[in-house]
Amino acid sequence: MDKRPIGIFDSGLGGLTVLKEIRKALPTEDIVYLGDTARVPYGTRSKKTIEKFSLQCAYFLAGKGVKCIVVACNTASSNAIDLIRREIKLPIFDVVSSSIEAIKKNKKGARVGVAATSATINTHVHKILAKKLGINIVMEKACPLFVPLAENGENDGEIAQLVSDKYLKELRGKIDVLVLGCTHYPVLEKAITKSVGSNVFLVNPAIKLAEMLRRYLVDNGLQNPKGGKVDYFVTDISGSFAETAKVFLGKNIDKNVTKTVLG
Amino acid sequence: MDKRPIGIFDSGLGGLTVLKEIRKALPTEDIVYLGDTARVPYGTRSKKTIEKFSLQCAYFLAGKGVKCIVVACNTASSNAIDLIRREIKLPIFDVVSSSIEAIKKNKKGARVGVAATSATINTHVHKILAKKLGINIVMEKACPLFVPLAENGENDGEIAQLVSDKYLKELRGKIDVLVLGCTHYPVLEKAITKSVGSNVFLVNPAIKLAEMLRRYLVDNGLQNPKGGKVDYFVTDISGSFAETAKVFLGKNIDKNVTKTVLG
Repeated sequence: MDKRPIGIFDSGLGGLTVLKEIRKALPTEDIVYLGDTARVPYGTRSKKTIEKFSLQCAYFLAGKGVKCIVVACNTASSNAIDLIRREIKLPIFDVVSSSIEAIKKNKKGARVGVAATSATINTHVHKILAKKLGINIVMEKACPLFVPLAENGENDGEIAQLVSDKYLKELRGKIDVLVLGCTHYPVLEKAITKSVGSNVFLVNPAIKLAEMLRRYLVDNGLQNPKGGKVDYFVTDISGSFAETAKVFLGKNIDKNVTKTVLG
Repeated sequence: MDKRPIGIFDSGLGGLTVLKEIRKALPTEDIVYLGDTARVPYGTRSKKTIEKFSLQCAYFLAGKGVKCIVVACNTASSNAIDLIRREIKLPIFDVVSSSIEAIKKNKKGARVGVAATSATINTHVHKILAKKLGINIVMEKACPLFVPLAENGENDGEIAQLVSDKYLKELRGKIDVLVLGCTHYPVLEKAITKSVGSNVFLVNPAIKLAEMLRRYLVDNGLQNPKGGKVDYFVTDISGSFAETAKVFLGKNIDKNVTKTVLG
């Protein structure tokens, strides 16, 4: 038994989609969530800057006495995970590893595509990791406008569809599986499905991550059977904060949101 | 005569549209440009965070020994100008003041609208300043997706038009003048004109700012007759940097771009 909270960080509020899955799988765990809302998005920045910001987030969570850290941002996972693992002496879970774990199960020969931010696609990390397992990622597609669309509540409707078609229509008929390689993308699922075709299986890495985390805590006797509290920290609270949080969490964010000095 | 450079800062690269106008009006001045590309955009952040980032940018330019500072970001001008003027003992020019100066000339009774970021619109600064001059700003419209569109080169075509129509079509027939209250918006001019109607006069505050700055330097004998060099500083250099810079500057950015430690 380990009563310490689980730490989760994301570049902003997209990581709340990961928090949601972890809450479902582990309802009695305490959680500390950090969203770097003062510096979101990470997906258009350089590797060095993503490393710097991500490490600051990880240090923050370590300071909160967490038992493990979940890197809920694909851009941070792709660009900063080696640095974080080197610097932080805690178990680290990340959404890229879990997406690879998720596609492992696909029937042999499935054609896999990845949709993600520019910074994630530039690392080709999904392709590299999948190749080691004999899985062929046949298409990688940067979708730079998906994050602003989701952050502005434009996750449905004509604009979302037009942007989604622009990025992903060319994948139609060419893939069987599509990894949603950004925590913002699950809220655009409807538009994405229309673009790539309803026969394509969409992988949300958060679900597999929650499963891996649960197994780890159980296997190591690190569960907290009596918690369930979430503390939300952000580096900035703008006027549209509550609204945006609701897009990703599917409900109003608890009142206990604290602005950190970070960022 | 004053050989010190002119300092210009923006949240990112949108301010290059302001630099372009200053270069046209004052071709023999040296310029130091700072783009806070590690933390762009400012337009969705809180006033406190915008103040903090903007002041850091102003300090940076002061450190470069500039003779004046141009706040080329409307969001910074709207949210942080009082703080900057209080803290920085240099002449400060800003795009909000110049936009008010620009609409002063409009024939009496013209119906003026403002399109800007959420953070700018939330301050209602254009409305407040215009009212003092007896000018009535009849509509204010936040256009949160315009910055990501422009930053991703989506300044023309179907997506830009759809987004522009969503924000601005309701202004059609109701305004005679529209202030482009964000440095990114001039590159979306075509789509904006289609939305509001070609009879609406679009105000680019950068043109008036360059004129005000030129007059100030001439009146005070502070011109540099023999310069013309531009030093570009940014807080991050991502893969798409050169491409994005070209969208705003209309030409390839000089090779002399330096990454600062700021941000």
